[in-house]
Amino acid sequence: MEKIVYQPIGIIHTNFTEKEGVPIQSVFGANHRGRVEVFSEYAAGLKDIEGFSHIILIYHFHLSKDYCLTAKPFLDDEKRGIFSIRYPRRPNPVGLSLVRLDKVKGNILEISEIDIVDGTPLLDIKPYVPKFDNRNDVRTGWYEKVSARSGRYRAKYGK
Amino acid sequence: MEKIVYQPIGIIHTNFTEKEGVPIQSVFGANHRGRVEVFSEYAAGLKDIEGFSHIILIYHFHLSKDYCLTAKPFLDDEKRGIFSIRYPRRPNPVGLSLVRLDKVKGNILEISEIDIVDGTPLLDIKPYVPKFDNRNDVRTGWYEKVSARSGRYRAKYGK
Repeated sequence: MEKIVYQPIGIIHTNFTEKEGVPIQSVFGANHRGRVEVFSEYAAGLKDIEGFSHIILIYHFHLSKDYCLTAKPFLDDEKRGIFSIRYPRRPNPVGLSLVRLDKVKGNILEISEIDIVDGTPLLDIKPYVPKFDNRNDVRTGWYEKVSARSGRYRAKYGK
Repeated sequence: MEKIVYQPIGIIHTNFTEKEGVPIQSVFGANHRGRVEVFSEYAAGLKDIEGFSHIILIYHFHLSKDYCLTAKPFLDDEKRGIFSIRYPRRPNPVGLSLVRLDKVKGNILEISEIDIVDGTPLLDIKPYVPKFDNRNDVRTGWYEKVSARSGRYRAKYGK
């Protein structure tokens, strides 16, 4: 199939200058703040976004230089398929984070609850709407088993 | 910034041969079924996915040939910023759907709750984990106002 070519629409600025130390998911990054800089040519697309408390950022894992089809997730000791985990080294290194939108100042979005490395190229922003994006009564495979095991998970993440 | 180049990892097959008639969000497409064909070179990445009842598909809106920075969402009469709506004609036409995973047969995923046009190139699959992907107590701006208005919304979507 044909290649797909995207052009970054902005940059995500955070205090995480390297992969180490980044929360494994945004939900664990409540106290971390960052800024989304949307390039001026796309700023008009931010109209009405201040009404949303949470937004979905879709971005490029720019530090992922290759990929693997199985890998050990941070929360588990067993290798899992790349499409069953959220690991960055994916065939197409597309990242997805649900973050809190704290303030909009022109083309800058102040955000918190983040798990993103500084300098990450932004591809898209979507409003978060629980009606569309939440499901209850779900099964979550290996994750369910791991999070049920008390020790390690709680010790590491306090949840 | 540098361009970002992705290679489709599969194709999404559905009964929606054109944009018209596609549910506006996957949550409204409960009775629609489709298949995700993951190309054989990536099939090993599907390990463990059968444990998840829901998956997030990230794909390319291949029918979007240009973009706009504001547009009328399907549910509203006012033009909104493109990053405040889920409309396909985006600067980078990346689509995101949370779908139900019904069955895995080798490199084929049988899915339902879909809102995707037939032949859509697939970029990535992520497992859906409510702990990571759900937030409660959120504000949803224009959407909140529209869905609160009784008539049109319910008449159109029965919800």
